[in-house]
Amino acid sequence: MKLASLKQGRDGRLVVVSRDLTRQADAAAVAPTLIAALDNWAAAEPRLQEIADSLEAGRIAHTPFDPKKCASPLPRSFGWADGSAYVNHVALVRKSRGAEVPPTFWTDPLMYRGASDEFIGPCDPIKAADTAWGIDLEAEVAVVVTDVPMGATPAQTGSAIKLFMILNDISLRNLIPAELAKGFGFLQSKGQTAFSPVAVTPDELGSAFDGKKVHLPLLSAINGKPFGRPNAGVDMTFDFPTLIAHAVKTRPLKGGCIIGSGTVSNRDADGGPGKPVPDGGLGYSCIAEIRTVETILHGAPKTPFLNFGDRVRVEMNDAQGRSIFGAIDHEVVKA
Amino acid sequence: MKLASLKQGRDGRLVVVSRDLTRQADAAAVAPTLIAALDNWAAAEPRLQEIADSLEAGRIAHTPFDPKKCASPLPRSFGWADGSAYVNHVALVRKSRGAEVPPTFWTDPLMYRGASDEFIGPCDPIKAADTAWGIDLEAEVAVVVTDVPMGATPAQTGSAIKLFMILNDISLRNLIPAELAKGFGFLQSKGQTAFSPVAVTPDELGSAFDGKKVHLPLLSAINGKPFGRPNAGVDMTFDFPTLIAHAVKTRPLKGGCIIGSGTVSNRDADGGPGKPVPDGGLGYSCIAEIRTVETILHGAPKTPFLNFGDRVRVEMNDAQGRSIFGAIDHEVVKA
Repeated sequence: MKLASLKQGRDGRLVVVSRDLTRQADAAAVAPTLIAALDNWAAAEPRLQEIADSLEAGRIAHTPFDPKKCASPLPRSFGWADGSAYVNHVALVRKSRGAEVPPTFWTDPLMYRGASDEFIGPCDPIKAADTAWGIDLEAEVAVVVTDVPMGATPAQTGSAIKLFMILNDISLRNLIPAELAKGFGFLQSKGQTAFSPVAVTPDELGSAFDGKKVHLPLLSAINGKPFGRPNAGVDMTFDFPTLIAHAVKTRPLKGGCIIGSGTVSNRDADGGPGKPVPDGGLGYSCIAEIRTVETILHGAPKTPFLNFGDRVRVEMNDAQGRSIFGAIDHEVVKA
Repeated sequence: MKLASLKQGRDGRLVVVSRDLTRQADAAAVAPTLIAALDNWAAAEPRLQEIADSLEAGRIAHTPFDPKKCASPLPRSFGWADGSAYVNHVALVRKSRGAEVPPTFWTDPLMYRGASDEFIGPCDPIKAADTAWGIDLEAEVAVVVTDVPMGATPAQTGSAIKLFMILNDISLRNLIPAELAKGFGFLQSKGQTAFSPVAVTPDELGSAFDGKKVHLPLLSAINGKPFGRPNAGVDMTFDFPTLIAHAVKTRPLKGGCIIGSGTVSNRDADGGPGKPVPDGGLGYSCIAEIRTVETILHGAPKTPFLNFGDRVRVEMNDAQGRSIFGAIDHEVVKA
């Protein structure tokens, strides 16, 4: 099934959305909000599924679904930890700063805690005060979990994955080097994250989800031009069960927490840097990567970071070309 | 007024607690949980104050207050960002790792995002799988805010401070160097944080809160022996309005978020390292500091990190010696 949160209060109003993303049915009889449903998912899930089945069969009252009226499926969350599972992305972005990738980065996941007190909706503006911050997209895949005990292993954590979303983890690229140099991780150098219009249960991904990774291209576009289409199932050094296990090594993880994949990034078949989509390549999920490749090839970056008025779109289609999550589609505006 | 959350469900049950911490009155008529009250604080605050006034006057039904039945005042939160405002602490802990303090640390606050999906209660055990992690206390002061817009200045953020708590920000000291070296900040190297039995409004601090800092000693003890009594108003390089302004430079901060001071730490009058409490000094708010001082003085640390069975107590008294927040008092146990 597919779930969305219409904008209302701090936690939204939960609706069940049809598979084709055209219709929605009220879910208030089960739970007023997605966060409330996740607090008791074992009870809520079958009842939400009943609504989803009735909606597909046309047996229930429904209204048109409009992503512009959506908050993120979880408009806020008690936990948002983002991995950096595509080490190719890390290697490229570090190269752009002249920083090395330690060998342990291929065996020990990188993960940071992001702000989760307010996510922006999939069509909400990306607000920034200054383009000198180096505003960048980061297109990613994320999972929402139920309770995971401290010390759970990757073999044990996979069953906690209940929902998938895609996201744009806005990064303020020019603030990152100085902030990371302080040693405490990202704080000012990440903007407000936007998730897809709907969150979907694993069955909606069919065989594209093998229990560990999502084997589909993640499509991003800037100002209507295709920018990236790397496959989220390729070059993911740390799969979702491994990322969750990393998060619970020294503490539990509670229901409703979100774990992200980090920026999706594929190497080329030859193991070298990617090529832009217009040149037949898979492209990128963030501008920092293409700037690094440009610097390697031409001595300097050519693609600018985002400016006010620029639009970013992130989407994932199934094998038949149908949008799974709806599109994140939003504009950078001056705060 | 003073507010607590009795253990019940994921968000607790809100009660108003008497000034002397002996009695509690139900607050369900105003809000079922503290998080719900903070979501609409302007409406909830005066009604909770009425209950507090009635409780002090003995005009309302009440039951005995027992900190052991308490979760943290916010059993979970949508945001927990912890500053490191006592740069003396940073300097000492870095010295123990052989790391320098960059000059900017005195002008640009350090702050990390901590896990907030489940805090432990003030008398709940500190669970750890292995004492080799280097289990350490960090005694701190924190504020809870209402909504703060992006870009607010220190002159504008002070009015968002609605509640104070003290806390033990459990640190896993031996996991920190490798994790911080990865550049993404703390994730596995922090345990579950415990807050005081009650959160209090600023008026409960009287003149000890000057709008920026809390001018009272923060008392910590290990296994019943006094360990630290540094004054939270002294050597706080970045005050609370400044820490909040740091957190909102590139994004807003929403109601119910918690901002911490970092480990409270005073220099000696002579500007040198502190002395243990038994030797007449102000002592420490974490074991890492005393180990650094021991290493400087004796060539090696003597005080071990916490073992299973050790107890930690953190408290703050007013000028008359009365406990303001109740005590965090808990034992380290094997997970």
